[in-house]
Amino acid sequence: MNVGGKNFRTIWLADDGETVEVIDQTCLPHKFVILQLDTLEEVAHAIKTMQVRGAPLIGAAAAFGVCLAIRHNSSDEAIENAYNLLLQTRPTAVNLRWALDDMKKRLLPLDQQERLKAAYDRAQSICDEDVVICQSIGEHGAGIINKVWESVDRIRPVNILTHCNAGWLATVDWGTATAPIYVAHNEGIPVHVWVDETRPRNQGSGLTAWELGQHGVPHTVIVDNAGGHIMQQGDVDLMITGTDRTTAHGDVANKIGTYLKALAAHDNDVPFYVGLPGPTIDWKLTSGKDIPIEERDKEEVTTVTGLTAEGQIKVVKVTPEASNAANYAFDVTPARLVTGLITERGICDATQEGLLSLYPENRLKA
Amino acid sequence: MNVGGKNFRTIWLADDGETVEVIDQTCLPHKFVILQLDTLEEVAHAIKTMQVRGAPLIGAAAAFGVCLAIRHNSSDEAIENAYNLLLQTRPTAVNLRWALDDMKKRLLPLDQQERLKAAYDRAQSICDEDVVICQSIGEHGAGIINKVWESVDRIRPVNILTHCNAGWLATVDWGTATAPIYVAHNEGIPVHVWVDETRPRNQGSGLTAWELGQHGVPHTVIVDNAGGHIMQQGDVDLMITGTDRTTAHGDVANKIGTYLKALAAHDNDVPFYVGLPGPTIDWKLTSGKDIPIEERDKEEVTTVTGLTAEGQIKVVKVTPEASNAANYAFDVTPARLVTGLITERGICDATQEGLLSLYPENRLKA
Repeated sequence: MNVGGKNFRTIWLADDGETVEVIDQTCLPHKFVILQLDTLEEVAHAIKTMQVRGAPLIGAAAAFGVCLAIRHNSSDEAIENAYNLLLQTRPTAVNLRWALDDMKKRLLPLDQQERLKAAYDRAQSICDEDVVICQSIGEHGAGIINKVWESVDRIRPVNILTHCNAGWLATVDWGTATAPIYVAHNEGIPVHVWVDETRPRNQGSGLTAWELGQHGVPHTVIVDNAGGHIMQQGDVDLMITGTDRTTAHGDVANKIGTYLKALAAHDNDVPFYVGLPGPTIDWKLTSGKDIPIEERDKEEVTTVTGLTAEGQIKVVKVTPEASNAANYAFDVTPARLVTGLITERGICDATQEGLLSLYPENRLKA
Repeated sequence: MNVGGKNFRTIWLADDGETVEVIDQTCLPHKFVILQLDTLEEVAHAIKTMQVRGAPLIGAAAAFGVCLAIRHNSSDEAIENAYNLLLQTRPTAVNLRWALDDMKKRLLPLDQQERLKAAYDRAQSICDEDVVICQSIGEHGAGIINKVWESVDRIRPVNILTHCNAGWLATVDWGTATAPIYVAHNEGIPVHVWVDETRPRNQGSGLTAWELGQHGVPHTVIVDNAGGHIMQQGDVDLMITGTDRTTAHGDVANKIGTYLKALAAHDNDVPFYVGLPGPTIDWKLTSGKDIPIEERDKEEVTTVTGLTAEGQIKVVKVTPEASNAANYAFDVTPARLVTGLITERGICDATQEGLLSLYPENRLKA
């Protein structure tokens, strides 16, 4: 997508053909900083401190981390060492483990002198495959947006509400929830996006609003409390969010607060769609009630990070010194509230039958 | 209620018997500052800058503002001047206008030398009447909390979720939504309160959490997104919120985001109660759809105020420079989602019949 009129991915090989460049997401939305990552340790640090975040992007970054680790020594030990160091950066990230397993499995059988090129080739293809998946989600989802536009006789923009950042910043390009929006926008369908702030980490006001703005997509930031009201007023045509994990029966785990918006969408007859890559479907789980919900650091609730009038990025405390806080990272939206799932293979109902119609190879697992 | 172990109201006559003291709510939760208000202008400034806020407290402060205005000149002109200046501080505040009308109506017919004492007497009685109303809401509501406690065989605290600040800081004492909680707590019923942060102004994390903590009520601050999840987990026994205006048929206008929590309460069989003083019922309105929803300054959405590590209260920006924002102050929770209304006269259904059973004198208006 575009930043300042120039096309970017979130991660790419530098001109030297070996080091890696990423957008430092901890500086957004206030500063656009490109980080050059020269070593395994720098990649690990970038993942750990969330300079890069979002499941697909973390996987891609880890793959490049392995490349950097074996530039001067491509021994089995070097690969194992890189694997272990990178895996510890975000121990619960499924995509991180998948990318590292994939790299290890491909590299270890090769002769040492073949490994470096193979590693870069695979890291690059992991990126490219993610872009293809996201773009395909975008193309399928844009059809839904186009239908809404037709239904209002093309006289006004289509109003879409999204929560958190399932945007291109969380992937290599396009995003998942945002992909249909970017495809529709690029095709000339007028869209306007309501962006939920998404406390506690403000990925909506900080990241989604920034990336939409840079790509030229009209949008309005609202607090997480406002979504129900604007649906009551008829100002939302559809919702699209991302997901961290979808069960085989269509329950959807996503950023905390998604469930509240799904309830409001249901109460106001607003279609509620979820954009997801097939690999995030957990075929072994049927009920969303069995998805463990991570509790994160309370400081995310008791503080907010922003830019002072003097131009410094500062953390400010918003709760009383003595008050306790709790920080649940995700919630589960039951399938009954989900209008449809937008995948790289098409759109389906949020049901076992719906998912199996697109992914029949999982019939035995389900 | 207590602050640091000492009992306070939000507004009181100073020891000199003439000037007025209030808690500066713009310094909370980080600093406890008592402001002495010596003049009409100081009262107007305190209301305008939200050093005092909350409908009942604003009304009480305005009444005292009239007292201060006529200390040295109790002419008709002085009263009219005070009336006009104070009314402009928060032009849409119904309680402010009510208190000012009441003061004017009582003072103008009196001889000038009788006016000052009558003004102070009436300002004081406005405060005392508010305390009686709120305490009565508390006693009725505490019965509900006690029943929940009995239903869990008194083996664990009753978990109550509240949104925004309908606490004693918004009134003269007790609060509306919090009154049942304080009465239950004072009677020895163990309660634990989930406090919604309540973006954009953070009245939950900043005010409700502070006042509960000072009075010794166990509580946990959560972001506004989390309430649905904790209900799904069975961690909420009931919800109690306040309201700015209730229609004759039981629709409830309250702080933005209340509707989302009411939907979640309904979806999880969590009773949803609203605490309200009878005077906030709008007998002329039937449908909540006819309640105009104020849009406030976008800066409340694009910024957050908090305490820096260096101990300064600072405003930080959380959105991109170029992004638009919208700030809807209230939403309407339809009566079908409200389990009951807790008033100073008792508890009733959120229906026309329910309200008229407690306020039969309005049968002709309704």
